[in-house]
Amino acid sequence: MEKRSVYCGLVNEEWLDKRVVLKGWVQKRRDLGGVIFIDLRDREGIVQVVFNPATSEEAWAIADKCRSEYVIEISGTVIQRSPEAVNPKMQTGAYEVMADQITILNRAKTPPFPIEDENQVGDDIRMKYRYLDLRRPQMTKNLLLRTKTTQAIRRYLDDNDFLDIETPYLAKSTPEGARDYLVPSRVHPGHFYALPQSPQIFKQLLMASGMDRYYQIVRCFRDEDLRGDRQPEFTQVDIETTFLTAEEIQTYTEGLIQKVMKDVKGIDVTLPFPRMTWQEAMNRYGSDKPDTRFEMELIDLSETVKDIDFKVFQMAIENGGVVKALNAKGAADKYSRKDMDQLGQYVSQFGAKGLAWLKVEEDGLKGPIAKFFKEATEAIIAATNAEVGDLLMFGADSFEVVSATLGAVRTRLGKELGLIDATKFNYLWVVDWPQFEYDEEAGRYVSAHHPFTMPKASDVELLATDPARVHAEAYDIVLNGYELGGGSLRIHTREVQEQMFETLGFSRREMTEQFGFLLEALDYGFPPHGGIALGLDRFAMLLAGEDNIREVIAFPKNGRAIDPMSQAPSTVSPLQLFELNIDVTTSEDDE
Amino acid sequence: MEKRSVYCGLVNEEWLDKRVVLKGWVQKRRDLGGVIFIDLRDREGIVQVVFNPATSEEAWAIADKCRSEYVIEISGTVIQRSPEAVNPKMQTGAYEVMADQITILNRAKTPPFPIEDENQVGDDIRMKYRYLDLRRPQMTKNLLLRTKTTQAIRRYLDDNDFLDIETPYLAKSTPEGARDYLVPSRVHPGHFYALPQSPQIFKQLLMASGMDRYYQIVRCFRDEDLRGDRQPEFTQVDIETTFLTAEEIQTYTEGLIQKVMKDVKGIDVTLPFPRMTWQEAMNRYGSDKPDTRFEMELIDLSETVKDIDFKVFQMAIENGGVVKALNAKGAADKYSRKDMDQLGQYVSQFGAKGLAWLKVEEDGLKGPIAKFFKEATEAIIAATNAEVGDLLMFGADSFEVVSATLGAVRTRLGKELGLIDATKFNYLWVVDWPQFEYDEEAGRYVSAHHPFTMPKASDVELLATDPARVHAEAYDIVLNGYELGGGSLRIHTREVQEQMFETLGFSRREMTEQFGFLLEALDYGFPPHGGIALGLDRFAMLLAGEDNIREVIAFPKNGRAIDPMSQAPSTVSPLQLFELNIDVTTSEDDE
Repeated sequence: MEKRSVYCGLVNEEWLDKRVVLKGWVQKRRDLGGVIFIDLRDREGIVQVVFNPATSEEAWAIADKCRSEYVIEISGTVIQRSPEAVNPKMQTGAYEVMADQITILNRAKTPPFPIEDENQVGDDIRMKYRYLDLRRPQMTKNLLLRTKTTQAIRRYLDDNDFLDIETPYLAKSTPEGARDYLVPSRVHPGHFYALPQSPQIFKQLLMASGMDRYYQIVRCFRDEDLRGDRQPEFTQVDIETTFLTAEEIQTYTEGLIQKVMKDVKGIDVTLPFPRMTWQEAMNRYGSDKPDTRFEMELIDLSETVKDIDFKVFQMAIENGGVVKALNAKGAADKYSRKDMDQLGQYVSQFGAKGLAWLKVEEDGLKGPIAKFFKEATEAIIAATNAEVGDLLMFGADSFEVVSATLGAVRTRLGKELGLIDATKFNYLWVVDWPQFEYDEEAGRYVSAHHPFTMPKASDVELLATDPARVHAEAYDIVLNGYELGGGSLRIHTREVQEQMFETLGFSRREMTEQFGFLLEALDYGFPPHGGIALGLDRFAMLLAGEDNIREVIAFPKNGRAIDPMSQAPSTVSPLQLFELNIDVTTSEDDE
Repeated sequence: MEKRSVYCGLVNEEWLDKRVVLKGWVQKRRDLGGVIFIDLRDREGIVQVVFNPATSEEAWAIADKCRSEYVIEISGTVIQRSPEAVNPKMQTGAYEVMADQITILNRAKTPPFPIEDENQVGDDIRMKYRYLDLRRPQMTKNLLLRTKTTQAIRRYLDDNDFLDIETPYLAKSTPEGARDYLVPSRVHPGHFYALPQSPQIFKQLLMASGMDRYYQIVRCFRDEDLRGDRQPEFTQVDIETTFLTAEEIQTYTEGLIQKVMKDVKGIDVTLPFPRMTWQEAMNRYGSDKPDTRFEMELIDLSETVKDIDFKVFQMAIENGGVVKALNAKGAADKYSRKDMDQLGQYVSQFGAKGLAWLKVEEDGLKGPIAKFFKEATEAIIAATNAEVGDLLMFGADSFEVVSATLGAVRTRLGKELGLIDATKFNYLWVVDWPQFEYDEEAGRYVSAHHPFTMPKASDVELLATDPARVHAEAYDIVLNGYELGGGSLRIHTREVQEQMFETLGFSRREMTEQFGFLLEALDYGFPPHGGIALGLDRFAMLLAGEDNIREVIAFPKNGRAIDPMSQAPSTVSPLQLFELNIDVTTSEDDE
């Protein structure tokens, strides 16, 4: 083999009239009047290669045998295409290579689908032949973008004195949080490692060890039911620092994002990013990760409607809840009564009993419940800033249900009404989080972030008495309606950490068994510390403009946690199970 | 908290007469005539901080309360120490900080061992309190060195168009090779993922997908019995390329190592590294990873001794074996008869029946077997280049046993006799490996590297007929007697891959079940490709001058695959096992 001169996709003016050696895949072969044209593809793009029997009969004859996806090596001279042959849609469209040599390095059967972005192939077949799917320009571009993203992240953190330190994947199972993936120990029968859901404790211990600034681009594992853009394993940009305030950690994070945006997208972002309290985000957007690329905010009508004789609203307010509205400007004629019924069904998943709505017409408010609002028409129009043609939607329930409902309706209508400028990257800090959420099912408080999150100093005393009112030194970074990452200051004293576990319902024995080593470490000069973790898959997805993280992962699992290519997970031999001292309790047929 | 001005260990001339804020741990507190001196430590080193009651009574009083490992923040002015107080052993020994403010950020109990390099603490206690052990300057330095190493590696590969692509950790179990760690699937009862022993197949498929150049610094897992410097999980610099020759891949690897040596050690290495065939390495050093920092090579005496009437030698030669010698120059009086007996016992682990030896004295060869060599004295002295005072040792057995025996003796004596210059970094390529080793136990050939290694083109036809004679397109990079990494060109055609599996004893069904997806991929335009994998833990260990990889891993496992700090692996709840559809077959007490 000769040495490649340049990637196909990078042939440019510099190479004009020069001899080149190119290697790649046959994207397309055409025979035009006895001359063969091959579109040759590599990871950087495509260039046209011409085989004229007048140049080399021998090369022409070999080129004639090439089929799609053959792997070839060619030599030739780069020339300018004639003006009428220039292809402005191709990066290399002004050039072509007059080839006089060609070697077939490997042949190819006809692939199960053509290697083109336009093809509409089912996800399962794409995943079964992932290596072919990745040949498609869009997928190649996505992996290149992801590489560029991690490079930018690493450079920024390297340049800011962060140490890249690896933590174990064979770790300890800690039932707090999501479900662990377990790994049976062969040497210690009945004992199991767990694949970490995050290196949280390890990175805190690295701060205890004085490493000062740590980062790791690290795989994390959660054995949860998969939905939307979840994967059993995902990648996190994991960061921890010592002696910094929450604001300083946010500033580093902003610097990191600024560099990524510049290096990967060529976009200059303005710093600092806006900050919003969790409460404000919920009030205005009904979401702790609001998409601020469009307005249509939630409007609190509790005061406005409190005297209106409409039972649904009255009850909500009497029960301590709220009444809020969304005004979809000019959307009245875009949603039929049937559409609104569907929307009403859609919101039931958020606990809402329905979605009341009104259309603003010349002669007042219209819709099934309009009759209740006759007298309040003006007040409502004023409060919602409504004009003729607007669609008003109402939520009346607890604050949580109304927020979830209208937040979801807002997101859905934002998309449906085309309110979102897809070229925008709206970053936002959501700060001042509540420390706990109440888990109705478990009948206890659970951490909104994780049990190592530091409560606001002024709220520490509420841990024992009124957990619902405790706020945390926690902050999320939100991008276009997605939680890009979350961070916090961490607890660095034993008393507070023990109090935290108590509030979460741990017995002293559970505390010691599961987290005794951390509690002990807190005794030996544990410095103030905090950090953040960013979801790399999601970040790359948003940068690539994709809507599923599968599109930026080389070998993802499908919705059933299977890799259709290698057929993992698979059965294993009885010897393997014997050596691990485990038995399968369910026969395969039960699956 | 105020902002830190500079790391303690980096206080230098630039900071003279300036006010600084420092944060760190109290290494030592001394009271000298009413003035308190605190050695303040952070990851970059130590600086002396002075609290004079004349400067601030208040600060002095707080400083007086500080104990070892307290976390403090101080403000003060950097001054030059008086000439007699300069400490040349400290990086910052010419300066001290006159402090007027101090805040105790956290207190510390007396640690279980002092945070000093000199302390001799057992491994288990070090690992239990790993976060304290990592505070020791040597351990901190090791982690800093490792970070620098990975940075250098990444920069080099980034700059050479390699894409950093992640591959799955939840992969498929493939019985070929070492034992897998398994991960039970909850969703698919009776099915298991396996943690990858290496991303070998994934990286090959990335080449099939046209990614052209891939790298990943990736964790790998092997559930093997642990010894020496093995860990259940280890980190690999995993590299794969398309369209390159073995020599080109080696050249990139050399460039990478050159950059690491320069960035991490400040050493300019000369390229290319020496190359030696596997056969030559075995002949001369009795090892496929020879330490070339010292000589003492194996000398083939089969010809010289073939007519000597010494049964051990005769039999070895008659059985198709060899007789070889080592000459330990000037070592005769350093090894007593008892020492030699011990050495004889030591070599039994390599299959040797003993270790014949002779000392060269003024009046000839001496030792228990000297009488057999009366007539051959001159011939032996000539062949071994022996002089008075030398110690000659002999191996007489099969080539394999003699190589293993004398190779091990050579390594041991090299250390014992102080022949090794520890400042040297001797890199060496070992090339032209045999494709297979014969596994006596399994009664079949096994891969010397792995089943995807390409045989030399001229040897392909021997796969079916004479596997022992097949050589591979494989190369190992050796550093100071350690295998730093191994690589090869890979098979890229289906016929050869199938033939390879057949030679390895796979049935057609096993082939398809385990590697069907790879075989299928070979049909669709699989390009010529190859790569290498370097052991990062071992590389960092050698660069740090340590002799166990635990010293360059933040949270390693001990010799029983346990993390004594977090107590992983641990028992888990019955609910966890129930959800995974597995039972433990052995009660805990059996352990």
